[in-house]
Amino acid sequence: MLMSDNRAIGVFDSGLGGLTVAREIMKLLPRENIVYFGDTGRVPYGTKGRDTIRKYSLQDERFLLSHDVKMIVAACGTVSSVAADTAEQLPVPFIEVVSHSVRAAVSTTKNGKIGILATSATINSGAHKKQILQLLPTAKVVEASGTLLVPIVEEGWTDIDDAVAIETLKRYLKPMMDEGVDTLILGCTHFPVLSSIIRKVLGNSVTLINMGEATAKAIGEILKQTDSLNDGTTATNHKFYASDKTDAFVGTVNILLGDYNKDFGIEQVDIEKV
Amino acid sequence: MLMSDNRAIGVFDSGLGGLTVAREIMKLLPRENIVYFGDTGRVPYGTKGRDTIRKYSLQDERFLLSHDVKMIVAACGTVSSVAADTAEQLPVPFIEVVSHSVRAAVSTTKNGKIGILATSATINSGAHKKQILQLLPTAKVVEASGTLLVPIVEEGWTDIDDAVAIETLKRYLKPMMDEGVDTLILGCTHFPVLSSIIRKVLGNSVTLINMGEATAKAIGEILKQTDSLNDGTTATNHKFYASDKTDAFVGTVNILLGDYNKDFGIEQVDIEKV
Repeated sequence: MLMSDNRAIGVFDSGLGGLTVAREIMKLLPRENIVYFGDTGRVPYGTKGRDTIRKYSLQDERFLLSHDVKMIVAACGTVSSVAADTAEQLPVPFIEVVSHSVRAAVSTTKNGKIGILATSATINSGAHKKQILQLLPTAKVVEASGTLLVPIVEEGWTDIDDAVAIETLKRYLKPMMDEGVDTLILGCTHFPVLSSIIRKVLGNSVTLINMGEATAKAIGEILKQTDSLNDGTTATNHKFYASDKTDAFVGTVNILLGDYNKDFGIEQVDIEKV
Repeated sequence: MLMSDNRAIGVFDSGLGGLTVAREIMKLLPRENIVYFGDTGRVPYGTKGRDTIRKYSLQDERFLLSHDVKMIVAACGTVSSVAADTAEQLPVPFIEVVSHSVRAAVSTTKNGKIGILATSATINSGAHKKQILQLLPTAKVVEASGTLLVPIVEEGWTDIDDAVAIETLKRYLKPMMDEGVDTLILGCTHFPVLSSIIRKVLGNSVTLINMGEATAKAIGEILKQTDSLNDGTTATNHKFYASDKTDAFVGTVNILLGDYNKDFGIEQVDIEKV
């Protein structure tokens, strides 16, 4: 019987936001290798249409499979909400970020009022809301799509006193405050970087659900149950690929990976040809 | 001798911003037909790398050629700055938006201080600056890249009192104000929609150069010189294509085309397969 599996975990996102999920995997499962693909040539997905997002997701999954991964993680709220069923044919387990964050939110809320802040494609899909109501039919769900937040993060306007970030978040979070939510799902992998500002706007009584944390825990459990953890006999060797590279790239990677950024080389691939 | 040419003018952009150029063509040359392609499936170009932008531009030009156009207009500051030479092999005249706006700016400035507000890819290319200094070697050029402005326009946060738009523009325009520019090139086709707020921030002493206006004039002159104007014997019939369609689409088209929006059907195309 196979007691370990030293193949890498494949992680993909529309761009670099999924690195916040990769970071949580590195933190919780330090023996695991990661193959990351960011579709920076076509980012963002979250403002685009359903068919386009599904087509792109299939290409991304095919790319990761070509790297012999043992599992594929859609580290992207938009893909998880709109295109999770594109993974039905995959020969390896598929993990998305919505269901695990929904479970964490439902077990956290005390007043049953849960907010979701995500991209417009994710909100339009209704994925979080539907899953919350399945687990907690009496829940009151308040949604907001935050189109400006991804560019704000990529611009690096993430200081706790940043006037643009604060004013933008006040606008997006107003319906959450009016309703008195006690739990907020950060439904886009870029948003954990804005946690401090969101806490400043909402106050400390609201618990923020980081999809990366919730998902990394689920990944650990699945690998353990299926005897597929990496046995740690070889040093970790993460690999990063992207469909476009720019001058701003290094800065954004730094913002998103934080302490876990170790100057990984990032290789560019032509995803349309995969 | 052919005294007219009733084929359409091909216009393309990374997304919908180029519609502000299409609008100026409709206004100045009401007999002309337009075939518009917006690469909404891969928008934005302005934060992406040079090779990626060039590859996308070639595909866009190929698509317009397949519609038998008499001229191709890159209604996109980023394409005009980074990928104009991809048009060298085209069998029809190619018009880009940078050179005509630079000429308008140089003939407008009195103190020789010219600002450029554009996407980061456009600013990094240095295209405007280089061309300004060729025409006016003593000019002082001040550049700023405005990553947040395209999403602000697409979010519709364009009221003259919008706090996020004002705070964001104050930040981007500060170097222009510090230097005392008297002329500002709006180097991205989305930005004319923000003209009122930009005037509020900068004051009325600064002249704004709208690339669409400057380019429509140049198109009219070229068509006249080459006896290629539409003779107006048939009613105009504009065609619009995009690589992605979303629910937000109609609203954005309305913001950008303004009075010239006439409920044109927009057809979706798979640009990666063209």
